[in-house]
Amino acid sequence: MIRVFVWNEFHSEKKYEAVREIYPNGIHGAIADFLKVDEKLEVLTGTLHDPAQGLPDDVLNTIDVLIWWGHSRHHEVDDDLVARTQKRVHEGMGFIALHSGHFSKVFKRLMGTSCDLKWREAGEKERIWVVDPSHPIAAGLPEYFEIEQTEMYGERFDIPAPDTLVFVSWFPGGEVFRSGCCYHRGRGKIFYFRPGHETFPIFHQPEVQRVISNAVRWAAPVNGPAPTFGNVKPLENIQ
Amino acid sequence: MIRVFVWNEFHSEKKYEAVREIYPNGIHGAIADFLKVDEKLEVLTGTLHDPAQGLPDDVLNTIDVLIWWGHSRHHEVDDDLVARTQKRVHEGMGFIALHSGHFSKVFKRLMGTSCDLKWREAGEKERIWVVDPSHPIAAGLPEYFEIEQTEMYGERFDIPAPDTLVFVSWFPGGEVFRSGCCYHRGRGKIFYFRPGHETFPIFHQPEVQRVISNAVRWAAPVNGPAPTFGNVKPLENIQ
Amino acid sequence: MIRVFVWNEFHSEKKYEAVREIYPNGIHGAIADFLKVDEKLEVLTGTLHDPAQGLPDDVLNTIDVLIWWGHSRHHEVDDDLVARTQKRVHEGMGFIALHSGHFSKVFKRLMGTSCDLKWREAGEKERIWVVDPSHPIAAGLPEYFEIEQTEMYGERFDIPAPDTLVFVSWFPGGEVFRSGCCYHRGRGKIFYFRPGHETFPIFHQPEVQRVISNAVRWAAPVNGPAPTFGNVKPLENIQ
Amino acid sequence: MIRVFVWNEFHSEKKYEAVREIYPNGIHGAIADFLKVDEKLEVLTGTLHDPAQGLPDDVLNTIDVLIWWGHSRHHEVDDDLVARTQKRVHEGMGFIALHSGHFSKVFKRLMGTSCDLKWREAGEKERIWVVDPSHPIAAGLPEYFEIEQTEMYGERFDIPAPDTLVFVSWFPGGEVFRSGCCYHRGRGKIFYFRPGHETFPIFHQPEVQRVISNAVRWAAPVNGPAPTFGNVKPLENIQ
Repeated sequence: MIRVFVWNEFHSEKKYEAVREIYPNGIHGAIADFLKVDEKLEVLTGTLHDPAQGLPDDVLNTIDVLIWWGHSRHHEVDDDLVARTQKRVHEGMGFIALHSGHFSKVFKRLMGTSCDLKWREAGEKERIWVVDPSHPIAAGLPEYFEIEQTEMYGERFDIPAPDTLVFVSWFPGGEVFRSGCCYHRGRGKIFYFRPGHETFPIFHQPEVQRVISNAVRWAAPVNGPAPTFGNVKPLENIQ
Repeated sequence: MIRVFVWNEFHSEKKYEAVREIYPNGIHGAIADFLKVDEKLEVLTGTLHDPAQGLPDDVLNTIDVLIWWGHSRHHEVDDDLVARTQKRVHEGMGFIALHSGHFSKVFKRLMGTSCDLKWREAGEKERIWVVDPSHPIAAGLPEYFEIEQTEMYGERFDIPAPDTLVFVSWFPGGEVFRSGCCYHRGRGKIFYFRPGHETFPIFHQPEVQRVISNAVRWAAPVNGPAPTFGNVKPLENIQ
Repeated sequence: MIRVFVWNEFHSEKKYEAVREIYPNGIHGAIADFLKVDEKLEVLTGTLHDPAQGLPDDVLNTIDVLIWWGHSRHHEVDDDLVARTQKRVHEGMGFIALHSGHFSKVFKRLMGTSCDLKWREAGEKERIWVVDPSHPIAAGLPEYFEIEQTEMYGERFDIPAPDTLVFVSWFPGGEVFRSGCCYHRGRGKIFYFRPGHETFPIFHQPEVQRVISNAVRWAAPVNGPAPTFGNVKPLENIQ
Repeated sequence: MIRVFVWNEFHSEKKYEAVREIYPNGIHGAIADFLKVDEKLEVLTGTLHDPAQGLPDDVLNTIDVLIWWGHSRHHEVDDDLVARTQKRVHEGMGFIALHSGHFSKVFKRLMGTSCDLKWREAGEKERIWVVDPSHPIAAGLPEYFEIEQTEMYGERFDIPAPDTLVFVSWFPGGEVFRSGCCYHRGRGKIFYFRPGHETFPIFHQPEVQRVISNAVRWAAPVNGPAPTFGNVKPLENIQ
C-alpha cells in the first residue's frame, strides 16, 4: 500500500468559475479521483487553507508520496512546511511537482537552482515525446502523446540536469522543454512533470493520468538503508 | 510474472572439485534456486554447452531478464548469440552481468568500452557501500555489507559512467570499485554487479541474493513504448 | 597545439553537382577551412578513398581529435579501422560525429545501441536550444540558433542518455531531438552534433562552426592518467 | 585571465598554534600562494572577519571562481551572503567547496540535500583514485595519489549524484567516499573536493594543488548564453 497525498494551493478553483467548471472538486480532487482507482494506493488530499496548510507532522511524516500543485500562492507556503517537506524527501518520501510547481519553494529548495523558464498562455498544442522508453514512468504510453491546449513552457529550464530525462516536449511556437525529469535526493525520489495548467482539462486526460500514476509508484520509498552520519569507528581486524 | 534466464558458461564447476563443492548444481543452479523462492519469477537456466549455447531464438525472444555468468570461456560465445542478445536488450530485455561477466562479449558490446579493471585473487574481504539508498536495487539492504572472502576488483574500471551508481566497494589492499552500476540502453536496462567469484560461496550469501533479486525486478521490461524509426511525416494542422 | 583530423566518406560531393556546389572542396575541406583559422589547431583531412581509408596507424595514433562525416557509405568502412578508432578513443582521442555519422560503425560501437532515429528530407527549419549554458561547447552561442533548411532528425534517438546534454532541437513538423550529446568513454571524449546535411550549406553557418570549434577543444585529450589494468599487488603497510 | 577568490572562515588558524604552524598565512594564504604561480589567474582572498564577510557585491560580482573553506563557523555566514553567492553561481561563477565546506550553507543550498557524511579524526591515510581519466580535473595526475594523514570522510555522502564523478577515495578503516564531484547548476559549475583538513599540511601537497588548479580552470565561466526567462512570443512564419 502506497500512501499518496495530493496537495493543492486551491486558489484558482475558488476564484475563477472557468477553472471550477473544469475541476469542480479542485485539481487535488481530480487527481485523487483517478489515483483512487488503483487499489494499492491510499489517497489523501489537503490544501493551503487547511490547518497546518494541510500537512501537519502526523500527516507529512506518514505519507509515501507527496504530489504538489501550486501556482500563484507559492509565497504563502510557510517556510517551516518547506523545511519539513524537504527533510521528508531526504528521508525517503517521494515528491512529484506538477506544472507550475516548478516555482514552489519546496521544489526550488530541492533543486538548488532558480527553476525559471519561458512561458506563454496561448492555448497551444504540446507534443510530449518519450526519450527513455525503458523507464517505468513511460509504462503504457505511446511514443508521444499530445495535449491539445496548454500553457507553453520553454527552455532554458533552469534545473539541474535530471538524473533521468524521460520526456521532452515540443510546442508549435518553436520551443522545446524537458518535461519529465527524475531526481534522486537523499533517500527520496523526485519527479517533475510539466503538464497541468488550471485552465485546461489536462488532468482528465488518460495519458497524463497514466504518467502521474506511474510516477507515484516509481517515487514510492523502496525500503533502502537509512544511512548513519557522524563520527564512526574503523573496521577492526582487516584481513 | 517475470521470466528470468540464468546463463552460465559452466566451466569451472566441471573442471574443479573445489568449485563443485560450493556450487554442486553450477552457479546457474545456485542462482536459480534462490530466485525460484519468489513466486512472481519464472526461472530458466542454460549453459554454453546446451544447443544454441543455451539461448535459441525461441528462448531468448521470450525472456524478460537475462543473468549472465562467464569467466574463462567468453571467447567461445558465438558472435551471433552476442548480436542477438544485444538486440534483445535494445528491445527491452533486462541484462544482469555478474562479476567476471564484465569481460563477456555482450557486456563489452553494450558498454562500448574495454571494461577492463584491476584484480587480485587473494581471498580478501569486500565491503560494499550503498551510495544511492533511494534505488530499488538497494531495497532491504543495510548501509553496507561485507563479503568475507572474494577476488578483488579495483578501479580504474573502464566503463561508461553508470546512469545510476548504487554500490561502491572497498578492499583492504587499498582499492575501490564501482560495484553496482545501472544503465538504460535502448528499451532495456542493464545492471552490473561485482561480487561472485566461483571459488567462494558468494551466491549463497543473503545480501548478494537480495541484490540480484532486486535487480531482476528493476531490470524487467516496463511496457514502455516501442519507438518507430525511419522516414516520418510531419504533424499536420499545427495550431 | 591540438591535432584535428576531419574524415569524410566523400561520396555525395563526387556524385552530385548540387552538393559539389555547396562544398566544392568536400565537406571535409569546408570544415578544415574554418578550423584552420584557429592557430592552436593543426588540421588534417582524409577520406574513404585514401590509402588505409585515410587513417593509417601513423596518422590515427597521432591525432588528438577525429571529426567524422559519413552518410551512405558506412558499410564500406573497414572493421579494422572501426576497431582501431574505437581503441584510440579509449586511449584518449576525442571523437566528434556529425549528423548522419550517428549511423557510422564507429559511433554505434562506442554507444552500444542502435543509434536509430526518425528523419525527413523536407528542407525544414531547425531551432537548436542550449539546455546547458555552463558547458564549454555552448561558449559564444545565443540561447538558441536556427538552421534555415535541414534534414529533420526526430526522437526517439536510440542512444545512451548523454553524460551531458547540451542542445535540444525543435522542428516545425512536431519533432524534438537531443542534438548535442557529450560522452566520456575510456580516456576519450565523444560529441555528437546533429546538424550537417550535405544538401544544405550548414557547415558554412557561423554558429555551427562555433559549435564544432568548441567541441574540438572540449574533446581534446587532457593528459589524464593512463590507467593500468590486470593483476595488482595490495598496498603494504596500511596505517 | 581568470579571477579567483579564496575564501576562508579563518578561525582555526587564529585559535590553534598547531594549525598556524602549518598555515602561517591561513589556509586561504596557502591556496592563494600556489594559485598565483599561474600567470593566467588573478588571485584574491578574504575571510569571515573582513567587511561584508569578505565578499561585498563589488567583489562577488566580478570574480570568476570562488573557492570556499569553512569548518566550524558555517553558522556565522550571513544568509544574505549565501543568497548572493548562490545567485552568482546561477549566473555563471564557478564554486569550489573544499573538505569541510560540504557543510557550508552555500554548498547545501546549491545541492538541495543534507550533505551529511561519516567522519573520523585519526590521521589516517587516504588513497584517491581517478575514476574518470578523461576529465580535465584529472589532468597531470597519476591514476591514484595518497594523502599520508587526513581526517576520514565516509559514505553515505548525502549529495545529489554528481554530474561527473572524478575521484573516489579509499580509507584504511573500511570506508569509501566520492571525493571529487562535478555539478552544473544554472550557468555555473561546482566542484567538491574532499581533502583539506586544517591539522595536516594537505594544501602543500602537489597533487592536491594540481587538482585545485585544474578545478579553477574547469569551473571558470565559458561565456555561454545568458538565458532569458518569462513571457515570450512564438516563432513567426514557421515553414
